Amino acid sequence: MRRGYSDHKQEVQKRLRRIEGQIRGLQRMVEEDTYCIDVLTQVAAATKALQSVALELLGDHLAHCVHDAVAEGGAEADVKIREAQAAIERLVRS
Amino acid sequence: MRRGYSDHKQEVQKRLRRIEGQIRGLQRMVEEDTYCIDVLTQVAAATKALQSVALELLGDHLAHCVHDAVAEGGAEADVKIREAQAAIERLVRS
Amino acid sequence: MRRGYSDHKQEVQKRLRRIEGQIRGLQRMVEEDTYCIDVLTQVAAATKALQSVALELLGDHLAHCVHDAVAEGGAEADVKIREAQAAIERLVRS
Amino acid sequence: MRRGYSDHKQEVQKRLRRIEGQIRGLQRMVEEDTYCIDVLTQVAAATKALQSVALELLGDHLAHCVHDAVAEGGAEADVKIREAQAAIERLVRS
Repeated sequence: MRRGYSDHKQEVQKRLRRIEGQIRGLQRMVEEDTYCIDVLTQVAAATKALQSVALELLGDHLAHCVHDAVAEGGAEADVKIREAQAAIERLVRS
Repeated sequence: MRRGYSDHKQEVQKRLRRIEGQIRGLQRMVEEDTYCIDVLTQVAAATKALQSVALELLGDHLAHCVHDAVAEGGAEADVKIREAQAAIERLVRS
Repeated sequence: MRRGYSDHKQEVQKRLRRIEGQIRGLQRMVEEDTYCIDVLTQVAAATKALQSVALELLGDHLAHCVHDAVAEGGAEADVKIREAQAAIERLVRS
Repeated sequence: MRRGYSDHKQEVQKRLRRIEGQIRGLQRMVEEDTYCIDVLTQVAAATKALQSVALELLGDHLAHCVHDAVAEGGAEADVKIREAQAAIERLVRS
């Protein structure tokens, strides 16, 4: 089934694999007793990378799923918009 | 060498492994064309989990590394406090 | 001219006046040398209140301005969606 | 009584007055039916300004109140560190 991110699927997967690598790198840093501040710098980098993925997924979702539902009209359009609002809220508050 | 998180090392590692699992779960979701909003909900959960690790590492760092440097006195105390400030800034802005 | 928030204008203004009151309260707290941690608690409360206003404005904007542009179709729909994405990005990163 | 921010009191007050001006500017924008996205840009700017005040207050608090309590030693040091951790948590999550 097509999703908002279908055109960027490979890029999203590449970013997620890179983030997985960052998280494994963090485990190595902790294993090797790396200085707290350096571990924290890497945690902040991984958090930013995750936020970028979220913003990309959300952008694609608006440009495709929400766009198409609104263009078609009907009750589904409102559902999609409310759903997007709730997702933005979770993102802003996470 | 002892670090701020040394007493919680196993717990920090357990959290990081759980986050690694969340990131792999995200790759599976994207692979299976999961609905964008459900992917986004998982990204927000992983982001929150990473922030919790950061807050725990920072708390341990203040309670041990910063605490000990200040208790000993000297120039190192100021370095440690400025370093912690910068780490908090990166955290708040990530 | 009608805007996304036109139906909630009074409520938005009421929230902004309350936030203005919180900021004046902060000035009073600093003037009276209130304990740092108590000042910080109030700053966090005002920040949350501002974020809630942002989320309400954004929700109204999606439900009206973006919705209407997409329903009408044409190039304006894409402009509105890209604009909304950029606004969400500023919000998530602020 | 001296607080962490006592040396920067005038600067903190100046920043808070500027933020108060931004919030009043927002009320004017809403009153004049300014375009949603432009209102949102100003809300993001005010939120960033508030976060900067928080980071300055927290930095001063660590460098003075927490520093002095730890240097003196005793139970108050632990109280101050736990309090600072909780304030950082509220900040990161706001």
